[in-house]
Amino acid sequence: MTDFPQDYETFDLGDFSLQHGATLRGAQLAYKTFGELNPDKSNVIVCPTWYSGRHWDNEWMIGEGMALDPGKYFIVVPDMLGNGVSSSPSNTPPPYDRARFPHVTFYDQVEAQYRLLTERYGIKRLALVTGWSMGAAQTYQWAVSHPDMVERAAPFCGASKTSIHNFVFLEGVKAAITADAAFKDGWYDEQPEKGLRAAARVYSGWGFSQAFFWDKVFLEPWDSPRLRATLQFSSLEDFLVAYWEGHFLGGGPIFHERDANDLLTMLWTWQHGDIGATPGFDGDHIAALSSIKARLIAMPGEKDLYFPPEDEEYASQFIEKGEVRRIPSVWGHFAGIGDNPVDSNFIDDVLKELLAGEGGLG
Amino acid sequence: MTDFPQDYETFDLGDFSLQHGATLRGAQLAYKTFGELNPDKSNVIVCPTWYSGRHWDNEWMIGEGMALDPGKYFIVVPDMLGNGVSSSPSNTPPPYDRARFPHVTFYDQVEAQYRLLTERYGIKRLALVTGWSMGAAQTYQWAVSHPDMVERAAPFCGASKTSIHNFVFLEGVKAAITADAAFKDGWYDEQPEKGLRAAARVYSGWGFSQAFFWDKVFLEPWDSPRLRATLQFSSLEDFLVAYWEGHFLGGGPIFHERDANDLLTMLWTWQHGDIGATPGFDGDHIAALSSIKARLIAMPGEKDLYFPPEDEEYASQFIEKGEVRRIPSVWGHFAGIGDNPVDSNFIDDVLKELLAGEGGLG
Repeated sequence: MTDFPQDYETFDLGDFSLQHGATLRGAQLAYKTFGELNPDKSNVIVCPTWYSGRHWDNEWMIGEGMALDPGKYFIVVPDMLGNGVSSSPSNTPPPYDRARFPHVTFYDQVEAQYRLLTERYGIKRLALVTGWSMGAAQTYQWAVSHPDMVERAAPFCGASKTSIHNFVFLEGVKAAITADAAFKDGWYDEQPEKGLRAAARVYSGWGFSQAFFWDKVFLEPWDSPRLRATLQFSSLEDFLVAYWEGHFLGGGPIFHERDANDLLTMLWTWQHGDIGATPGFDGDHIAALSSIKARLIAMPGEKDLYFPPEDEEYASQFIEKGEVRRIPSVWGHFAGIGDNPVDSNFIDDVLKELLAGEGGLG
Repeated sequence: MTDFPQDYETFDLGDFSLQHGATLRGAQLAYKTFGELNPDKSNVIVCPTWYSGRHWDNEWMIGEGMALDPGKYFIVVPDMLGNGVSSSPSNTPPPYDRARFPHVTFYDQVEAQYRLLTERYGIKRLALVTGWSMGAAQTYQWAVSHPDMVERAAPFCGASKTSIHNFVFLEGVKAAITADAAFKDGWYDEQPEKGLRAAARVYSGWGFSQAFFWDKVFLEPWDSPRLRATLQFSSLEDFLVAYWEGHFLGGGPIFHERDANDLLTMLWTWQHGDIGATPGFDGDHIAALSSIKARLIAMPGEKDLYFPPEDEEYASQFIEKGEVRRIPSVWGHFAGIGDNPVDSNFIDDVLKELLAGEGGLG
């Protein structure tokens, strides 16, 4: 991978053993920080990445005057294992390369990040963990894996447990990538482009809501905080090619390179998301929710097709200091990606409110 | 195709010219009838087929004591062009065979059925047209193409115009089939099995609602009126293979053979559904809705993911004698397939009520 911004640091995880048994030797956790760690190390915010996202995709949340203000906070954006920047199929040497890259759980992801924060920085408390989608799953995982460390949590458009329907939706994405003979069971030399384009088409029905298309929002100019650009699509097909296929193929100035095995590794992590699988909970998702001490505000998208708000409202009742605020938007799941200023502001306002109030640890 | 029940008749359409310009020479319309045409030909019901459906898939709606009672009505179930029984890519001789099979619109479908009913039977009035999904689209098309012929119409889980979101969902299904190199641009000798299985996975997230999976309805035994069998799945994966891949691959005692080009032909018809494209309306969907004289009850599924009830409620306001009844079900789009007795009874009850009341033609 040569087209990435080289604006990040790495933490050497050494021999990193995963929950499902494999050990990644010389595993690397990539991350980027913003702001300064204060003397008592009380100003830390962690903001994990999402499916196919890289650290730069989270930067829209960070800025002067925003909730994640680098003038006040030390903000750490860790790249998820599998995302192509941290250790991933596409950058790991044999024998755990490519199709042989092991299964990684959200628990593993958080353990890697915990080691970075504690070993490199000596951090003992997190003022906030927040993230979108798979970043939301990592947010929940943080609050369960290290309940005495997380003061506040704000998972948005995500869940503490991947629902069966969500799993099934992802089966379609996976099947599209792997239907391409060029995928060669993961042992390709060239990306399975047809499969990636097919996966983009499959995903394009899910990312936004029915109402988003009914209102033809894809034909309006978008001032994307994330991409720092105004996006404009000339037709539905242009939207499907330029935004969706562009996203899955990667390359170009906006999206950067992608790798099919990386996408499938993250997909496996997502499909198997469940805080109940944290050691000590024996699969009991409710018990894991009940163990959360953080003050937690979940923000599901009102019309999210794969993380419906009802699921978060169900989960919230088991979290002592839990609360739900629906993002009132037709952008569906993508209300949280940072491509729509209105939804992005909604999220930022809730984060400000959460940060201004007491944490959950007293 | 050799594994079909041979329980149907055919009507020779001769040289059948299609809306998009091609002529199918020697086109065949397959159909099955139930009951007897009464002397004044006032007891006719038409029940068109759905995406991938064949006439036998509609038989669950027909029976003694049901709305579609063959003791009272003459019920005609026409097989959609493209469905593998009527003229289709899989059964049409060169040069319009396979990948070269032409585009067929809902207008074309209804013209073929109109010719059958008028030329073979001399029918001038229809007591009712009703159908699920693409059958609903044909129901709307009947009411627009032949407004003085249709007394009552009951489209369920469908629309008079395919929404943009629905079009996008179908793009994913199409991309999955065609991503398989074995598809060979439609010139395959063997079915692109991997692509069909991938399409099944893609579709499996859409057919039912999120709540259907949340409630694990797929693990309950289903007494399917359509399949005249109790279906029981042992796990999620069993449901995805036995029900979904079984459906798309076809073969076996339940689903019968499938063909990829047939599926893509029907998909094109569906994607381009719009009663506004009826000659004389110049693309004006609202004007076409306003021209409907039939008493029409639309039955969208409460949680249908690709034909959301809001769309039908919008359309209904332009239909003089139009009304909407939501099917209160977690089965989503598949509330209307006939695999769930509760939803099937709901539909039957509304059809009974509609048939008991006055038609729209006075």
